[in-house]
Amino acid sequence: MAAVRTLDDLFHETLQDMYYVEKKLVKTLPKMAKQATSPELKTAIEEHLAETETHVERVEQVFAEIEQKPVAKKCEALEGLLKEVEEVMADIEDDDTLDAAIISSAQTVEHYEIARYGTLACWAGDLGHDEAESLLREILDEEEAADEKLSRLAEASVNRQAAA
Amino acid sequence: MAAVRTLDDLFHETLQDMYYVEKKLVKTLPKMAKQATSPELKTAIEEHLAETETHVERVEQVFAEIEQKPVAKKCEALEGLLKEVEEVMADIEDDDTLDAAIISSAQTVEHYEIARYGTLACWAGDLGHDEAESLLREILDEEEAADEKLSRLAEASVNRQAAA
Repeated sequence: MAAVRTLDDLFHETLQDMYYVEKKLVKTLPKMAKQATSPELKTAIEEHLAETETHVERVEQVFAEIEQKPVAKKCEALEGLLKEVEEVMADIEDDDTLDAAIISSAQTVEHYEIARYGTLACWAGDLGHDEAESLLREILDEEEAADEKLSRLAEASVNRQAAA
Repeated sequence: MAAVRTLDDLFHETLQDMYYVEKKLVKTLPKMAKQATSPELKTAIEEHLAETETHVERVEQVFAEIEQKPVAKKCEALEGLLKEVEEVMADIEDDDTLDAAIISSAQTVEHYEIARYGTLACWAGDLGHDEAESLLREILDEEEAADEKLSRLAEASVNRQAAA
């Protein structure tokens, strides 16, 4: 990582992180949708994939707002989260349990994004990047909605599983 | 990881994950408090350390509720998050920027815990472990409060930084 001296630098670094995250999720979400067995869960993941593709573009717009080229920086946190997702999915044989695990794992990724976009939007505002702040808050709202949708699905599918 | 076949297995595995997380944070939070320069941030981290020590005990009580021995399982997600924390802290020279980075990193850890305890509490309820559910919801509430406190501190310290 290059030396970080100011909040501007930190904002830029963290944005590079999230650019990596969104691009990586565009590749990862189809694999999760494929593994999911509940049709509702498959649809929810596919819908969030479509949103994630727009997040890549909006993060590129934020780079333009701060007059920087979009560059992705490997995000160790996401790598750790996805390693855990793969580990847990590889070991589950029962379909309902697998769906519960997929939802749970997807929510850890959503919460990582909620934490990061919350911070980035706050910093953008403080740094006077008003248009960037709006773009980041739009993404944040969609991540929060995706997390809530997963919670609702979990309650439905997990209850079914528990009753089985 | 042992084969996971039922929601009971998944609950148990995830609890082992969180036992690792809480024990690791008891070691990591003092380092973060030491690096922080704002006295308010130092105090907030120290207060959350005291809470984290009670979370270790409450997770042990949850193991007792499901008649299992408390065992910690290495959590790859937390390792990734902490690797990112160390990376960013090593490269920052300016005090206010360092504090902003510490808050931001701590919030990614809080959000990981919020996602996990939200899931665990939901599963505990579905599996009929009512006392375990109550314990998990108590921890969840404290993690959410800790995250909100960090957001309030961020707004104060980041604004000071941005105005400098």
